[in-house]
Amino acid sequence: MASKVLVLYYSRTGNTRRMAEFVADGAKAAGGNVTLKEVENANAEELLDYEAIILGSPVYYGSMAAEMKNLLDESVEFHGKLDGKVGAAFASSANIGGGNETTILDMLNAMLIHGMVIQGNPAGDHYGPVSIGAPDERVKKQCRELGRRTVQLANRLAAGAGRG
Amino acid sequence: MASKVLVLYYSRTGNTRRMAEFVADGAKAAGGNVTLKEVENANAEELLDYEAIILGSPVYYGSMAAEMKNLLDESVEFHGKLDGKVGAAFASSANIGGGNETTILDMLNAMLIHGMVIQGNPAGDHYGPVSIGAPDERVKKQCRELGRRTVQLANRLAAGAGRG
Amino acid sequence: MASKVLVLYYSRTGNTRRMAEFVADGAKAAGGNVTLKEVENANAEELLDYEAIILGSPVYYGSMAAEMKNLLDESVEFHGKLDGKVGAAFASSANIGGGNETTILDMLNAMLIHGMVIQGNPAGDHYGPVSIGAPDERVKKQCRELGRRTVQLANRLAAGAGRG
Amino acid sequence: MASKVLVLYYSRTGNTRRMAEFVADGAKAAGGNVTLKEVENANAEELLDYEAIILGSPVYYGSMAAEMKNLLDESVEFHGKLDGKVGAAFASSANIGGGNETTILDMLNAMLIHGMVIQGNPAGDHYGPVSIGAPDERVKKQCRELGRRTVQLANRLAAGAGRG
Repeated sequence: MASKVLVLYYSRTGNTRRMAEFVADGAKAAGGNVTLKEVENANAEELLDYEAIILGSPVYYGSMAAEMKNLLDESVEFHGKLDGKVGAAFASSANIGGGNETTILDMLNAMLIHGMVIQGNPAGDHYGPVSIGAPDERVKKQCRELGRRTVQLANRLAAGAGRG
Repeated sequence: MASKVLVLYYSRTGNTRRMAEFVADGAKAAGGNVTLKEVENANAEELLDYEAIILGSPVYYGSMAAEMKNLLDESVEFHGKLDGKVGAAFASSANIGGGNETTILDMLNAMLIHGMVIQGNPAGDHYGPVSIGAPDERVKKQCRELGRRTVQLANRLAAGAGRG
Repeated sequence: MASKVLVLYYSRTGNTRRMAEFVADGAKAAGGNVTLKEVENANAEELLDYEAIILGSPVYYGSMAAEMKNLLDESVEFHGKLDGKVGAAFASSANIGGGNETTILDMLNAMLIHGMVIQGNPAGDHYGPVSIGAPDERVKKQCRELGRRTVQLANRLAAGAGRG
Repeated sequence: MASKVLVLYYSRTGNTRRMAEFVADGAKAAGGNVTLKEVENANAEELLDYEAIILGSPVYYGSMAAEMKNLLDESVEFHGKLDGKVGAAFASSANIGGGNETTILDMLNAMLIHGMVIQGNPAGDHYGPVSIGAPDERVKKQCRELGRRTVQLANRLAAGAGRG
């Protein structure tokens, strides 16, 4: 029973899109049933259909793009219904200290407010993958690993549901 | 020579608007030349016209409303030109631990990325005024004080410009 | 098979201690095998013995007390071994906008870096319980709920382990 | 009349120390009267002697080292007396997404709570310089620039004092 995973991203330059593809690859390789989607083509109600939601955004002034924020703002209509789902995030930035961590945490905080379950990574990019400019091999590995770990956590929670 | 101050806010319920009015009152009482405006009626270019910019937003999933974020995203066209201006922020929330500090810091971080100058307050709400529900007397005082301190800092920077 | 839960706190005035007791009560009521401990009496190695770790600190300049941070700094010796455990946090502050959210997120971020699993709460204090001054009935309820939800998540993860 | 600047750091591997030296060099080149000091050799009262305080720490679990936090915790004795001073921060990390921004913001938040004045940088590392491993030329430039901008801001505030 594969966990349903949504990888939702916003991208202008294509850097965040490539990260999203790597995350989706990693999630598929781990057995996830993965949907890859641009945020412009999604609505808040769709979030209910997945066991895990992974958000990706470029870094705009230290937080997620307004287009992604807009979807989250609209998700208030379903407040409480994402409780217990798995969440994760990644970001693409121009500079090393350019606001990439604050952007990832911005998305993770929104997920916590929804009651979602998030997990860090003790190796590499701890809060979520960060790309400085175009994704390189290091970023590819971090993204695939995020996909894998997210599926693993969603599977574990699904298997334990009702048995806790 | 009064510092030009913009108080820019987004409000649906009216709580953030009332905070904005209190902030504007405090800034005027301190001698500021104050413009109070809803973000829907503003554009990014206007930010260049002020010595100090104070942003206010309701707390939506732990960060500023998409409407406010949209203006900041568009301000990238003027990146570098806000360097050295004064910034400040305030937020209106439903709960005590509902994301109000993260919302204020979300706006302050954006201002830091623009190179702006921000100041905390050693008394009361340290990062910026927080209202839980409708603004009460405590919040009114915090907001007026934010207006006052912002004008004071802007004046001090203006007086010191070119003499540093 | 009850999940082992550690509630670890630092307290000078007693406010954080009372919060810790409420959290422990909630965790026990949910069937957890709970240990309540002051950070001065704990060492980093003990963290390995629990399925869930809940940290509580007063708000000192927007982040956890140095005494709590010291234990986390020492936990680097066991880096990687807390991966997959459940984490949660709470804080006690003097003011509403006094740094309580940043203090809780400071502890949660440390747990994410350890690879731990955290969950927000869609109702009430989203990131973790916040007390302004001495804990009142509202805070008591938030704390008990944090204990309950943490045990529930730990149980679910334990039941799903190896089955994901 | 040169502004008095304190560069205060904690360093085990020497990476943060080298950053501190670069920051101090930049501040001196800008005409600052600079003191460079390890946090182990400083006490909270000394903070009162400077117009600008720049803190540097390695990234330990997403926030400043306990040794630095301890000094800030002790600074509560002088709460209110740092109001209006200039603050800045930098951090040294092992990974790109390893918690370096959250560490810098941890220190900046503490300074805001003291009522201090901070400024971001529209170019490069926006919140403060970040080194991934040993400082390279990029980091050296960012650190020198932080020193320069901090002195410039302190001078401007000093020149404008009492004239705002």
